[in-house]
Amino acid sequence: MSTPDTINLGIFGGGTVGGGIVEILTQKSSYFRQLTGKTIRVRKVCVRDASKPRDFTLPEGCSIVTSYDDILDDDDIDIAVEVMGGTTDAKDVVFTALSKGKSVVTANKALIAKDLPEIEKLLTTLDTDDTQFRYEAAVCGGIPIIRSMQSDFVGDDIKLMSGIINGCTNFMLTAMDRDKKSYDEALDQASKLGYAEADPTLDVGGFDARSKLKILMRLAYGMDVEEDEISCRGITELTKMDFEYAKMLGGTIKLLGVAEKNDDGHVSAFVSPCYVTNDDPLSSVNGATNAIEVVSKNLVSSIYIGQGAGRYPTANSCINDIVALAKGDKTKLPFNPKSDTKFANNYSSVFFLRLNYRDQVGITRQVGEICEKHDVSIHSILQNPVQKSQDSAFAIVTEKVEYAAILQVLADIEALSWCKGKPFYMPVLREDWQT
Amino acid sequence: MSTPDTINLGIFGGGTVGGGIVEILTQKSSYFRQLTGKTIRVRKVCVRDASKPRDFTLPEGCSIVTSYDDILDDDDIDIAVEVMGGTTDAKDVVFTALSKGKSVVTANKALIAKDLPEIEKLLTTLDTDDTQFRYEAAVCGGIPIIRSMQSDFVGDDIKLMSGIINGCTNFMLTAMDRDKKSYDEALDQASKLGYAEADPTLDVGGFDARSKLKILMRLAYGMDVEEDEISCRGITELTKMDFEYAKMLGGTIKLLGVAEKNDDGHVSAFVSPCYVTNDDPLSSVNGATNAIEVVSKNLVSSIYIGQGAGRYPTANSCINDIVALAKGDKTKLPFNPKSDTKFANNYSSVFFLRLNYRDQVGITRQVGEICEKHDVSIHSILQNPVQKSQDSAFAIVTEKVEYAAILQVLADIEALSWCKGKPFYMPVLREDWQT
Repeated sequence: MSTPDTINLGIFGGGTVGGGIVEILTQKSSYFRQLTGKTIRVRKVCVRDASKPRDFTLPEGCSIVTSYDDILDDDDIDIAVEVMGGTTDAKDVVFTALSKGKSVVTANKALIAKDLPEIEKLLTTLDTDDTQFRYEAAVCGGIPIIRSMQSDFVGDDIKLMSGIINGCTNFMLTAMDRDKKSYDEALDQASKLGYAEADPTLDVGGFDARSKLKILMRLAYGMDVEEDEISCRGITELTKMDFEYAKMLGGTIKLLGVAEKNDDGHVSAFVSPCYVTNDDPLSSVNGATNAIEVVSKNLVSSIYIGQGAGRYPTANSCINDIVALAKGDKTKLPFNPKSDTKFANNYSSVFFLRLNYRDQVGITRQVGEICEKHDVSIHSILQNPVQKSQDSAFAIVTEKVEYAAILQVLADIEALSWCKGKPFYMPVLREDWQT
Repeated sequence: MSTPDTINLGIFGGGTVGGGIVEILTQKSSYFRQLTGKTIRVRKVCVRDASKPRDFTLPEGCSIVTSYDDILDDDDIDIAVEVMGGTTDAKDVVFTALSKGKSVVTANKALIAKDLPEIEKLLTTLDTDDTQFRYEAAVCGGIPIIRSMQSDFVGDDIKLMSGIINGCTNFMLTAMDRDKKSYDEALDQASKLGYAEADPTLDVGGFDARSKLKILMRLAYGMDVEEDEISCRGITELTKMDFEYAKMLGGTIKLLGVAEKNDDGHVSAFVSPCYVTNDDPLSSVNGATNAIEVVSKNLVSSIYIGQGAGRYPTANSCINDIVALAKGDKTKLPFNPKSDTKFANNYSSVFFLRLNYRDQVGITRQVGEICEKHDVSIHSILQNPVQKSQDSAFAIVTEKVEYAAILQVLADIEALSWCKGKPFYMPVLREDWQT
C-alpha cells in the first residue's frame, strides 16, 4: 500500500471527465497537500485504446494502461476512480475494487441507479471503514446534491423534491420558449452542443431524469423504488401552444422530476413537464443548467442551482470526493438508512389540460360533465382565439385534484368525437401545491 | 469523558435556537444513533435565568444550569454548543471550551466575523484533531454555505460571490417593490415578524450583510479583511422611483454582498443595493429568503437559495455540525488555508445613477460633459415624464466603468446648482458584468 503521506489513484477512463480530473489534480497538487496533509498522485489511467490522442498531460509517474487488472491488482492504488461509464464493465470494476479494499469514486449515474442497493450490500459486508464509496458526480454533475442529501438534512424531514435534473431538455425548453425554436431545431442544437445523450430518447423521454430522481429518493426517503414504477413523461407532446398558454398564465414549462411525501406517509413521484410560475426561482433556470428544490420541515425551502454536466463541473465533484477521502472523511454506508416508507404512484396537484378539438357546439358542456363525474373542479378555462376551426385547442386549469381522477377525465374526453389526438396534461407547480 | 458510544452536549443558550436544537435531538435520537453509532445526549443547558419558562421539554438526564463553568468544567461534556449570541461572554465560553479540549459548534455570526482568526490560531496550537470547531449556522442560517465553501470548491477557483445575505432587507425590498409599501411600512412589518436585528441599522445599513461577506471571503479567498475596508451601503437611500426605473429596465433591486477576484488577482468587495435583471434567479428570491451565487472556474455558476434565519433553519445547521462531529468528521483548521490574496476596494461594473433635479435647460449637456471628463460612457438615459418641475429625476445607465470614476462623476454632479440631494447609484448585476 501507499505511504502514510501519499494517496495513489487509478482512473478508469481517460476521456472528458477523466482528463478534467487529472488536470485539476495537477494544477492544485500543492494546495491539496496543504489541505489533506497528503500527496495525491495519479498512478495509472486505464483507457481502451492507448494510442488515441489525449487532451491532457499525463502527470509524472503516471502510466497509461489498457487492462482493468493493471489497476485492480495493484496494491499500491488506494482509490479507484470510475469515469468510463456503462453498467457492465463499470460494475465489475467497482465491485472488484471495493472487494479488494480500494475506495471508489464514481460519476456513473446509470450504475448507481441500477446497482446502488447491491453496492451498499457489499459495503456492509466489508469489515472496515477504510473502504469508502462516493458518487457525488453521478447526479447533477457540479451540484453537490448527494453530499447535501447525506449531511444537510439529517435532522430534517423532506416533504418534497422538485428538480430540473436533465440539462438537454431544459436547454430545449428554453430554446422553444424564449427563442421560439421548434422542437426539432431545439433538439438538433442540443445534440450539436453535446447536451444530448447518445440516445436522446433518454433525455426527451424523461428517463435520464427518472434515474436521477430514483437516486435522490433513496437518499431523501431511504427507499429503493424500481424506476419503472415512477410515472415518466418527457417533453415530446409539448406544442408551441402550450408555451403560449403558459405565458398567458404568467409562467413557463419545465421538465421536472418530483417526489413528494404525502400526509399519509407514502411517497409519490413522477417525471413530467410542469407549469412553473414566473415568481418561482426554477422558472429562471435556463439552458442546460440544473436545479433542485427541497421542501422540508426545518429548512422550509432550499434550492440548489448549477451545472448538471460537462468536463469541469463533473470532474470538480469527483475531486471533492477524492479530497474528502484523502482527508480521511468517512461516510458509513448505507448512509441514509433504509426506511419502510412506501411508494404510491398517486399524488394531488393542480393540473393544466390542453385539448385539441374540431369546432362544434356543446364541447364546454361535455367537458364540464366529465369533470363533474370524476369530481374534478375546474379553476379556469383559457382559449386563444380560434384560428382554424379544424385545428383549435383550449386549456383547462383544475383545482387541486388526484392524479388518478385526471387520467379518468382525459380518457373520457379522448373518447369523444370532437377530440383530436391525445389530450395533453401537466401538473402546475404552485406554492399552495407544495404545502 | 463520555463512553465510546455516547456524545455529551452542553448548550449555552436556551432560547429560540437552543430550544430548536434540543427538540430535533429528541425527535431524531434513534435515527442519529443509527447514523453515527453513538447516542447524542444533551446533559446541560446554560441559561441566564433558570426560572424563565422554556418552550421546549428538557430531555431526561439534562439539567438547567446558570453558570458557564457548570459546562466548561464538566469533563463529561464533549461538545459545547454556543447559541447565546454576543461577542464577550460567548468569546470566553468558546475559547475556554476549546482550550479544555471540547469541540465547539456555534451559530454566532458576530463572533466569527470578529474573532475567527484568533480562534483559528488557538486551534492550530492544540495538539489534537479531536477538538473541532464548526460554525455552519453562523452565516445564512439554513443554507449550508460554510460547508460548501469548505468542501465543494477545493479544486475550483472562485471568481465572484454575490449574495442576498440579509433577510430583513430582502423582505423590505420585496414589500416595497411587489407590495408597494413605503420604506417605513416595510421596516415596521419586518420588525414585527422578527426579521430585524435589535438595532435595525445593522440590517438596513448593510452591516450585517458585510459581516457575512467578510466570513465568506475568508473561506473563498483565504483572506482576512477588516470589515471597515469593505464599502458598505444599505437600502436607506432607495426611493419608490428607483423601483419604477428598475421595472422599466426589466428588473428589480436587491441588497447584495459582492466579492470579486479581478483579473490582476486582487479581490474587491462591497455591500450595495444592486439592479438585478428578471432573468437572474436572484431576482425571484423574495421575502426573508437568502441566496448566494458563486461564479467559479470549474462550476461556472452555483446558486444556493434558502432560509437565512429562524429557529429551525438555524438549529438544523447546528444539528448538521453536531452529527458530523458524532460521526467523527474532522476538518483541519484553518480549513481553507490563508492565501496572500490582496484586497483592493475598486471594481468595474455597469452602474445605474439616479439624479434628482430642479428642472432647467442644459442638464443633459452638463451631465454628458462630466461623464466624458471622467471617461464614463453612457449606455442610456431614462426619464419618467416630469410630474412636478421641482421634484423630478432621471436615471443613467453607464457602460462598464471603474467604481472610482463613478464616485468622481457623482461628486461633480452633486456640486451643480440644479442637483437636489445626493445622487443615488448602484451596480447593475448582469451576465456580462460577471464574466
